[in-house]
Amino acid sequence: MASVLIREAKEGDCGNILRLIRELAEYEKLSDQVKISEEALSADGFGENPFYHCLVAEILPAPGEPQGPCVVGYGLYYFIYSTWKGRNIYLEDIYVKPEYRGQGIGSKIIKKVAEVALDKGCSQFRLAVLDWNKGAMDLYKALGAQDLTEAEGWHCFRFEGEAMRELAGK
Amino acid sequence: MASVLIREAKEGDCGNILRLIRELAEYEKLSDQVKISEEALSADGFGENPFYHCLVAEILPAPGEPQGPCVVGYGLYYFIYSTWKGRNIYLEDIYVKPEYRGQGIGSKIIKKVAEVALDKGCSQFRLAVLDWNKGAMDLYKALGAQDLTEAEGWHCFRFEGEAMRELAGK
Repeated sequence: MASVLIREAKEGDCGNILRLIRELAEYEKLSDQVKISEEALSADGFGENPFYHCLVAEILPAPGEPQGPCVVGYGLYYFIYSTWKGRNIYLEDIYVKPEYRGQGIGSKIIKKVAEVALDKGCSQFRLAVLDWNKGAMDLYKALGAQDLTEAEGWHCFRFEGEAMRELAGK
Repeated sequence: MASVLIREAKEGDCGNILRLIRELAEYEKLSDQVKISEEALSADGFGENPFYHCLVAEILPAPGEPQGPCVVGYGLYYFIYSTWKGRNIYLEDIYVKPEYRGQGIGSKIIKKVAEVALDKGCSQFRLAVLDWNKGAMDLYKALGAQDLTEAEGWHCFRFEGEAMRELAGK
């Protein structure tokens, strides 16, 4: 039987990661927003001071099966800084291809992020989820996450584009 | 008349920054959560690869006034990574002492963050705000920010403590 391996991404995974980033954006109904390229993902994630880190979920075929390993999910994270607790992790994206859901691959990615966080001395990790994505919300809560928007009233704000240029006077 | 300068923080500002971090946590009614020390702020923000960057708002006394400059606000940010747009900025904290509000100091900090973001090639910056902090919400919206929780339904989630250790199997 095929098995799943959660491993650190290598530079050669960037093409697969970009395809999954686009799939996730389609799932979020926001695919026109993806402006990143494979080259940028390579440069930004695999230089001396990487801007992000990435885990991939790879299906390993059973011995004797003709196809090679296949990347079916990813979790992309980076280090953030809490003025209460110090260095922490933010899980920017987590995605598993629809045909591979229901096998616990998402949970395995989340667990690996928790391991990395503890290994790096972080006391927490954060992520954001869309309120109509009930499956994801229920999974994160079942795994022990707290919904801070619900519990404490946190709202996510963003400045961008023209508003940001006007602010900067540029 | 006294004037306000928004400048990059120096290591010697960490004591003042920590006092303001505690004041902000009190304002958010969550002051028991602050576990950071002045030493950690120094080490984490002023090493070779700083985990965060900080702006401070300093009141410069008019010539002839007896007191020296005085730090009355701060904006602490770091670089994050959007899988749609690449490198961006997250403004973790922004705070102005109550007795110095209403003079546009918060807006000046926000504007400086927008400048830094554009200078560093970022297309956006994000922040989070508590829904009962209507003054802050109104200010950010007036400056052109979008409330993504309201507009798109994003919720902030956090894993920490025992839940994170259980996930990691530790």
